[in-house]
Amino acid sequence: MSGIRVAIEALAVADFVWPARVYWEDTDAGGVVYHTNYIKFMERARTEWLRVRGFVQSELQREDLVFAVYGLQLQFIKPARLDDLLQVEVRLKLCRRASFTVSQRILHASTSDELCRGEVEIACLDAQQFRPRAIPQALLSEIQR
Amino acid sequence: MSGIRVAIEALAVADFVWPARVYWEDTDAGGVVYHTNYIKFMERARTEWLRVRGFVQSELQREDLVFAVYGLQLQFIKPARLDDLLQVEVRLKLCRRASFTVSQRILHASTSDELCRGEVEIACLDAQQFRPRAIPQALLSEIQR
Amino acid sequence: MSGIRVAIEALAVADFVWPARVYWEDTDAGGVVYHTNYIKFMERARTEWLRVRGFVQSELQREDLVFAVYGLQLQFIKPARLDDLLQVEVRLKLCRRASFTVSQRILHASTSDELCRGEVEIACLDAQQFRPRAIPQALLSEIQR
Amino acid sequence: MSGIRVAIEALAVADFVWPARVYWEDTDAGGVVYHTNYIKFMERARTEWLRVRGFVQSELQREDLVFAVYGLQLQFIKPARLDDLLQVEVRLKLCRRASFTVSQRILHASTSDELCRGEVEIACLDAQQFRPRAIPQALLSEIQR
Repeated sequence: MSGIRVAIEALAVADFVWPARVYWEDTDAGGVVYHTNYIKFMERARTEWLRVRGFVQSELQREDLVFAVYGLQLQFIKPARLDDLLQVEVRLKLCRRASFTVSQRILHASTSDELCRGEVEIACLDAQQFRPRAIPQALLSEIQR
Repeated sequence: MSGIRVAIEALAVADFVWPARVYWEDTDAGGVVYHTNYIKFMERARTEWLRVRGFVQSELQREDLVFAVYGLQLQFIKPARLDDLLQVEVRLKLCRRASFTVSQRILHASTSDELCRGEVEIACLDAQQFRPRAIPQALLSEIQR
Repeated sequence: MSGIRVAIEALAVADFVWPARVYWEDTDAGGVVYHTNYIKFMERARTEWLRVRGFVQSELQREDLVFAVYGLQLQFIKPARLDDLLQVEVRLKLCRRASFTVSQRILHASTSDELCRGEVEIACLDAQQFRPRAIPQALLSEIQR
Repeated sequence: MSGIRVAIEALAVADFVWPARVYWEDTDAGGVVYHTNYIKFMERARTEWLRVRGFVQSELQREDLVFAVYGLQLQFIKPARLDDLLQVEVRLKLCRRASFTVSQRILHASTSDELCRGEVEIACLDAQQFRPRAIPQALLSEIQR
């Protein structure tokens, strides 16, 4: 119930919310989620945010397009622990010709506590040489809705 | 030869340099290192930077002290690939009572190309409740040398 | 549709089926899922298999019980790729006083292709000293249903 | 000192020994190394075993050859913990036309305790279609020495 409520509230400010469950693989000997794994959760959410808009990255790669993270500014506020259910938010902040910036947050699903927040800068590149290329117009329209 | 030269030059600006080899586990289907894995390399280098100064984190944990990353500002400039040998730099930027900030860079060992750079903010916490605690004086002296 | 059909067929032979989506983090520079990551998918499925039976491992850990993998026999048959949706099966094969063995398979959700299969041997240990301890009777009853 | 002794003794039975240090990234909330990460350490050691024999896998991939793990039989005996230094052994057990089997062990460097042991079956495949291909004669000669 409260998980659903958090998701609904999150969608008031986010464009997209995707769940992540914390498994043993995500934790470290401090008893909490290892810091880089929050960034993996963010990437999963961005992947699903694109997927529901009709864009599958393995297909984009075959069309010679990859998205690459070129900047991260993150704050880690509270730790997540084994078995926690998290809500990972994606919100488009800024869109340029060959790159875009998303704001992302990770919330604890049952308490609504904010665990992690920040911005991820993503470049659109050709899949072979990793040179900047324009974001396809159809994709641009979909993510800017 | 050039790997040694890069390391020597790096030490002119860095406090510490630690190597990392790129294995299959570090790469992704884009043919390059997955972005969060650079952040793991940075953590390994910080661990070794502390170790050579006499501080082993598993021992600190038993003395009720853990270091937790609470902020990341990173730029990813060029990708690393399978089998690349990298040099991971650590430089203490700022030290406070219960936290410190390090500047870190990852260079390609043979070309000296800068692949990744940024700052990592680290809090000193008690190992049970994760409340801020003062950095022990002996550790402070060692990392500020 | 066919994903549902695979799941229904799988349940004819498996006790439990859990989905896994392949993200960038799971792949390697060979363009396929890195071999150890199938084993992570298997562990997620076992965790959910226990969860639906009412057993949450972080709670068990607070009651001084952890499950540890002590044996793996796996065959990797076909590779999974970025964006593939997988079905991870769990079937209890054998149950002893302080350990049990599960058969696990990973299928491609849309083609039903078997990607990976094998057995995982799991010991029930106390959470501090990692000494064998009897599986609690309530848990034993639930997983043997 | 004792680390060196373990390595020398290991070489009496192994073809190759490679060190691995346990970092935070390798551990889980049980306070020990997460089981799949031992298998990553084994893969690093196989990569270095090939490298000292003159074979670099990123170069082999460009020559349309990849090695893929198709079988694992592993026993996990004792856990490794944060900061432990490990010795990872590789011994060629059996060599076929298009595949080979290695025996691998992971020892604790300072106590010589055996932590993990088993066999890894590896197929030689073309890098595009993943069809079996013969192991190149030069590589075969080197690993069989």
